[in-house]
Amino acid sequence: MRHQIDFNAMLKQAWKDRDSLLCVGLDPDPAKLPVSLTSGGGALFSFCREIVDATADLVCAFKPQIAYFAAQRAEDQLEQLIHHIHDAHPGIPVILDAKRGDIGATAEQYAREAFERYGADAVTLSPYMGSDSIEPYMKWQGRSLILLCRTSNPGGSDLQFLESGGEPLYQKVARLAAGQWNASGQIGLIVGATFPEEIAKVRQIVGDMPLLIPGIGAQGGDVKATVEAGRTADGTGMIINSSRAILYAGNNGDFAKAAREAAIKTRDEINRWR
Amino acid sequence: MRHQIDFNAMLKQAWKDRDSLLCVGLDPDPAKLPVSLTSGGGALFSFCREIVDATADLVCAFKPQIAYFAAQRAEDQLEQLIHHIHDAHPGIPVILDAKRGDIGATAEQYAREAFERYGADAVTLSPYMGSDSIEPYMKWQGRSLILLCRTSNPGGSDLQFLESGGEPLYQKVARLAAGQWNASGQIGLIVGATFPEEIAKVRQIVGDMPLLIPGIGAQGGDVKATVEAGRTADGTGMIINSSRAILYAGNNGDFAKAAREAAIKTRDEINRWR
Repeated sequence: MRHQIDFNAMLKQAWKDRDSLLCVGLDPDPAKLPVSLTSGGGALFSFCREIVDATADLVCAFKPQIAYFAAQRAEDQLEQLIHHIHDAHPGIPVILDAKRGDIGATAEQYAREAFERYGADAVTLSPYMGSDSIEPYMKWQGRSLILLCRTSNPGGSDLQFLESGGEPLYQKVARLAAGQWNASGQIGLIVGATFPEEIAKVRQIVGDMPLLIPGIGAQGGDVKATVEAGRTADGTGMIINSSRAILYAGNNGDFAKAAREAAIKTRDEINRWR
Repeated sequence: MRHQIDFNAMLKQAWKDRDSLLCVGLDPDPAKLPVSLTSGGGALFSFCREIVDATADLVCAFKPQIAYFAAQRAEDQLEQLIHHIHDAHPGIPVILDAKRGDIGATAEQYAREAFERYGADAVTLSPYMGSDSIEPYMKWQGRSLILLCRTSNPGGSDLQFLESGGEPLYQKVARLAAGQWNASGQIGLIVGATFPEEIAKVRQIVGDMPLLIPGIGAQGGDVKATVEAGRTADGTGMIINSSRAILYAGNNGDFAKAAREAAIKTRDEINRWR
């Protein structure tokens, strides 16, 4: 196992060294993989490794989504992938997108899964079960827990926008995440790019806490509005995720090159407004 | 794959045939397994299989918790276990406790994981991301989606008890789950046994919807109060889960026998108040 892991320190260094807030989401949909890869075993790993190697100098983080591997009985390929990122591109933090949510002994098993089995530097979690569904992960010092706050999908408003104790629920989550839940400083939040004014509100509540922002690219969030709403005083503070628009920018033999070009374009568009 | 799966029909039949509302939760903690099993490979499967075979005539459902398998790289043993339940004890529905929560294409991958890979009859989900995090699972007709509503842990109150649109958030979730989210009739809810008056409130909102109720046994919920609060007019409507108090009732060679005795006692205690 690696030593001296500190997600927040790695992230700050990556923001600076690579001058990038871009995170590439690794969601390898079997139906969309290039033809050249779909025939052999290990296609999810092979595809993601090529994307990773083509974009590693352009990103502040990678975010593999575990569902795509689990549905294919390909947990071993996810292990390989995260190992490859750490090995070939040291210093880039890996966020395991799993959105786990459970308590006590069960949460501890999920933490083992994310941090020990997969070696992730951060894991995404759901806040619905409250403080004791988050605390068990904090024993892994230096790792980060990134909680759902305001999500970029239409149904996100069903609960997150409900007026709860005088403010929308997502603001209450932000307040808890920045306050009583966050004694150890390991928490980050997910806030969708589709609601820039809500990113601004969350930023106001949480200070310099890292925000993971999905929803640009395929989901249509506005980059300028997102960056202006979410940046910290030093022009960082955000992990802006794009998955499909980068993974599937090309179609066949050129997919890695096309992904690199899409990543450069997205990184530059983000940097324009920092 | 099996045909004509309908979780609600299986559950009703199991309630009737076995005269039991008890669900045994399969949370195989490696630190607590009997010495006789911990040495060889496949210990999680072997342990759970013995528990299943010793209690199958006493339960209305089994609920394996995926985290315990995932932390040990033992997804194959979870597949074996669910296959064994369906094969050796047909008619008992299996609830995969995974508390997944994601949208669109990702939710679809989680549905494939639960229903196709593992062959579960139901899966637990978090409602935090709203309607479009639940809909993708409904394509698998006859399977059930059991949503977190009011959880039995102390931190559950952090969000679930917030006044949201004139009622506590968990009641709002119950109302959505019984109403606009539930066009297909596939939804159930999780309501912890530690809050009987809240079970009663949820029952009032959702009619005869199945309620999965954790928190009796090791977590200390009161059986009489739970059953009186949650039963439907015909004395069913509940899947009352006990995990640790049954799994670890014995210590070594006699663990299956001890589990059976604990299950009988719990089933009878539940039936006393139906």
